[in-house]
Amino acid sequence: MKLVIAIVHDEDAYELVDNITEKGFQVTKLATTGGFLKSGNTTLMIGVEKERVEEVLDIIKNVCKTRKTIISAPSPVMGTAGVFVPNPMEVTIGGATVFVLDVDRFEKF
Amino acid sequence: MKLVIAIVHDEDAYELVDNITEKGFQVTKLATTGGFLKSGNTTLMIGVEKERVEEVLDIIKNVCKTRKTIISAPSPVMGTAGVFVPNPMEVTIGGATVFVLDVDRFEKF
Amino acid sequence: MKLVIAIVHDEDAYELVDNITEKGFQVTKLATTGGFLKSGNTTLMIGVEKERVEEVLDIIKNVCKTRKTIISAPSPVMGTAGVFVPNPMEVTIGGATVFVLDVDRFEKF
Ligand code: NI
Ligand code: NI
Ligand code: NI
Repeated sequence: MKLVIAIVHDEDAYELVDNITEKGFQVTKLATTGGFLKSGNTTLMIGVEKERVEEVLDIIKNVCKTRKTIISAPSPVMGTAGVFVPNPMEVTIGGATVFVLDVDRFEKF
Repeated sequence: MKLVIAIVHDEDAYELVDNITEKGFQVTKLATTGGFLKSGNTTLMIGVEKERVEEVLDIIKNVCKTRKTIISAPSPVMGTAGVFVPNPMEVTIGGATVFVLDVDRFEKF
Repeated sequence: MKLVIAIVHDEDAYELVDNITEKGFQVTKLATTGGFLKSGNTTLMIGVEKERVEEVLDIIKNVCKTRKTIISAPSPVMGTAGVFVPNPMEVTIGGATVFVLDVDRFEKF
């Protein structure tokens, strides 16, 4: 048995939990404040059989991996005409930090 | 030294913390949202000497183990007579998921 | 790779996170309620290379170690004269409980 501790961005947490539970894994979400990836992180604990660690890591990677996206930041209104000029910006989102720990003993009561 | 991570139902958490601290163990309660046992879980971390792990697991088992209970769910009011018929239902409550981890090093400052 | 789990007093958490990140370590703050050191604790998770564990432990010790301090507790107002007599009291503050765990595998996505 292994314990996977994954620190992910809040915006990826919902989809990640959904994908992980769909595959039959059990996941616990810890409320996290601040941290590894600047802010707005969620820490997940996933108990997993040794043979399925790779599978869990693949799910995390697929959902959370760092990727670039274009957002349209609002620019200031120009003069009295009130023209709104969208200001496309490339930003990096996502990312996950994952620790896999050995479990000495696992019990369910 | 071992680190016991126990994920329990909120309704069992108070009694469990009480029972554990009474025996001289130190316990830290993490705010948990959602998780392993559907909803309303609490994650506890308990640092414990190797020789006393069994004792901690026994306390967790005694307080948290899955058990059945009868609740009286309100049934819909019948007609104009307003007769309330209690509707006894058997539900399963409790349950704990426990990971015991090896501690490489333990310090108190 | 090691995972350092440090349970510290809330009042030391900010300075500790600051000192740890300044040295290039990554830290995740978990919301903690109650626990090891009576009340108002924060749990920090710090991923760290084996060779730098000592450095992290030193930072925690320096910031959080138990120390005595003098506080002036307000004493009751005496009679109608309303004389306020400061009441110096020595109290113990700080303290940290630290677990260092082996990391089986570490990934960043
Ligand atoms: Ni970020
Ligand atoms: Ni439940
Ligand atoms: Ni205290």
